[in-house]
Amino acid sequence: MVEIRKPIPVQEAIEHVWNHRHQGCTEYISINDCDNRSLGENIVASHAVPPFNKSPYDGFAFSSEDTLHAGLNNPVEFDVVEHIGAGQVPTIRLEQGQATRIMTGAKIPEGADCVAMFEVCKTYEKNNMACMSIKRTMKAGQNIIEEGSEVSEGEKLIKRGTLINPGVKALLATFGYSEVKVAKKPVVGVIATGTELLDVNEPLQPGKIRNSNAYMIESQILRAGAEYKYFGKLADEFEPSYQTIKQALEEVDILITTGGVSVGDFDLMPAIYEKLGASILFNKVAMRPGSVTTVASNGNKLLFGLSGNPSACYVGFELFVRPIIHHSLFSKTPYLKRINATLADDFPKPNPFTRFVRNYITYENGKISARLAGVDKSNVVTSLAHTTGLMMLPGGTRGFKSGDEVEVLLLNSSEGQLEF
Amino acid sequence: MVEIRKPIPVQEAIEHVWNHRHQGCTEYISINDCDNRSLGENIVASHAVPPFNKSPYDGFAFSSEDTLHAGLNNPVEFDVVEHIGAGQVPTIRLEQGQATRIMTGAKIPEGADCVAMFEVCKTYEKNNMACMSIKRTMKAGQNIIEEGSEVSEGEKLIKRGTLINPGVKALLATFGYSEVKVAKKPVVGVIATGTELLDVNEPLQPGKIRNSNAYMIESQILRAGAEYKYFGKLADEFEPSYQTIKQALEEVDILITTGGVSVGDFDLMPAIYEKLGASILFNKVAMRPGSVTTVASNGNKLLFGLSGNPSACYVGFELFVRPIIHHSLFSKTPYLKRINATLADDFPKPNPFTRFVRNYITYENGKISARLAGVDKSNVVTSLAHTTGLMMLPGGTRGFKSGDEVEVLLLNSSEGQLEF
Repeated sequence: MVEIRKPIPVQEAIEHVWNHRHQGCTEYISINDCDNRSLGENIVASHAVPPFNKSPYDGFAFSSEDTLHAGLNNPVEFDVVEHIGAGQVPTIRLEQGQATRIMTGAKIPEGADCVAMFEVCKTYEKNNMACMSIKRTMKAGQNIIEEGSEVSEGEKLIKRGTLINPGVKALLATFGYSEVKVAKKPVVGVIATGTELLDVNEPLQPGKIRNSNAYMIESQILRAGAEYKYFGKLADEFEPSYQTIKQALEEVDILITTGGVSVGDFDLMPAIYEKLGASILFNKVAMRPGSVTTVASNGNKLLFGLSGNPSACYVGFELFVRPIIHHSLFSKTPYLKRINATLADDFPKPNPFTRFVRNYITYENGKISARLAGVDKSNVVTSLAHTTGLMMLPGGTRGFKSGDEVEVLLLNSSEGQLEF
Repeated sequence: MVEIRKPIPVQEAIEHVWNHRHQGCTEYISINDCDNRSLGENIVASHAVPPFNKSPYDGFAFSSEDTLHAGLNNPVEFDVVEHIGAGQVPTIRLEQGQATRIMTGAKIPEGADCVAMFEVCKTYEKNNMACMSIKRTMKAGQNIIEEGSEVSEGEKLIKRGTLINPGVKALLATFGYSEVKVAKKPVVGVIATGTELLDVNEPLQPGKIRNSNAYMIESQILRAGAEYKYFGKLADEFEPSYQTIKQALEEVDILITTGGVSVGDFDLMPAIYEKLGASILFNKVAMRPGSVTTVASNGNKLLFGLSGNPSACYVGFELFVRPIIHHSLFSKTPYLKRINATLADDFPKPNPFTRFVRNYITYENGKISARLAGVDKSNVVTSLAHTTGLMMLPGGTRGFKSGDEVEVLLLNSSEGQLEF
């Protein structure tokens, strides 16, 4: 089947895919397993923070009124009637002239409205009773962290779709979320095509190479927060390939095939799409690498036909698949974070189409530089290993020079953005 | 036990800890499970890449000599004697006037030294034989990706200590690393102290708060690439606390306690260190928050006594524990990446000691801005959730203003640096 392929602009291709996105589901998991998962609901304060008036210091709590006449030459004396640590609860209501020895974080006793640090108090015994004196006046509320001063009960704290990091996890624990409602990870299936592919544990054979794309894509899928399911590689034969893909579609939310989408004589994917009845959103994009990227919609599932070329496959995943995964994880910023950077190397190639160049970011004196991760051919194999960003060079431009400003899509940023 | 504590500078504290680092171990794991693990050995090319001369295009392979007299008015004709896809192996050695139809990535047949793309060839049949003609001269080596042109056999590709990302995983697959030698994750034990602490699933009680630090630290430990082991919380009683810590030390590589290190009356940790015979590296650091951070060495294990205050605990982990974990993962850049940024908010507080301020990074026009994640008290609870960096303000400075240049330690960067 030879067909005419009309390349569409990257932006348009991304919008086509976006229009076929699906809403994600949620599930409950233990707080112990929630790291890097995406919140499936807004987190609301189930109680005020702090939940009681508390002491910011180790010291003495008492009524500020008692220090009204205190001064350098007029120490005011208190009986120390109780001694409480953090987590211990004061039991004595303080009367005039009484103080409670209190530890950082402990609850302020009834009858007290201020705390004096140890350093400004003198402690001693008198008639076998613990005493304390202070030579300064205190104000009502002084050194007291008031109930609810940090958070009121019911306050919205963290939005659905936020990735759970150490700070979010601390919040979840604070508010008693022992089970956490998170976005269910979409299952992304992967099928490799191509008789030239060997499994990773097979010895090298003439004319063949090991299937590295499946492993690369697995890692990209996991990095994007989804679950990976591998269906093996297809032989270049139509019927078994069709059956494998049809079966896989029933077990996944998203299906990726690598290879088999160019116009090479042995590429089967176009015919398989046709037999599935999948509607092809596009099969050529005005970009390098990855121009042969094909995306099709089959019922409520998306099929991504990524190029067999490793760089094209990598870029195709990040541009087209990642936003769909992040959307189903409730992210409000599903696209790769795009920043401006200063190119730190020359890139002399002209760019007839939008070009995505592997690069890594360096920070120099408060400015962001983009260095090429693989200018030379000899770096092709290792360049993806060092890649932390994709430099996006607009189509219709000549080469770029060191010092030029360029746009870079960040691959490792926990932050994304609303639109491409 | 009341003791005089002498604060030491942050830099010195970090060096003390560093001097007690230990070498990590390695283990073999399946390539399927290697994401985000740290390489336990250098990765070396087990074969040349490509492993054979291959075609970059769909086209025809033949000997360039045959086109010596080709020209616009002098097409040269070839018999197409074989047709191979990628992964298929050419079986026919080409003679003069013969060509092989070849697909992208396929091995160049013997007798051929160039490839012409389909687009520049005319294909037709003659006497029921497939033929092809071309109207231009070709050079030896033209459109041929030479064996070993990307990587030579034995070439060192990726260094031990590199984190396995999608590009590294692709490399591992390419070279047949079905089992990958990785750094064994150090086991980091965590013990919380403080009778005020409730478990996450307990209802709130007067004077008590839920133990959020243990969950936060768990998340930080996992983010740093180590394994987490929780030993529960200690009551504020000496003997059982001592026994728990002694036992825990036998099961972990690194032990963290949270709380119990300040001079509060109920803080037991100093006495426990003494009974263990642990040598205290320092117990006060000239920094905020986290001045009471204590680190002790017990045999070949480090004990980190972090503050019970969540911010201080967070900062103490990142400054002191993280580099030790990363070192045992063979990282050559175990310290947090430090960059310059422009402060985008006012920070009016004076800084008698080195201060670490929770912030997040924004990128504006190629410049890096640091915004405060929690200026107001009301943000204390959620500020750690939004924190992506720690702004480091030198001791002895007054407040800072929007527009000032500051140094920021990046918390989410896969990149680190050699020294603090």
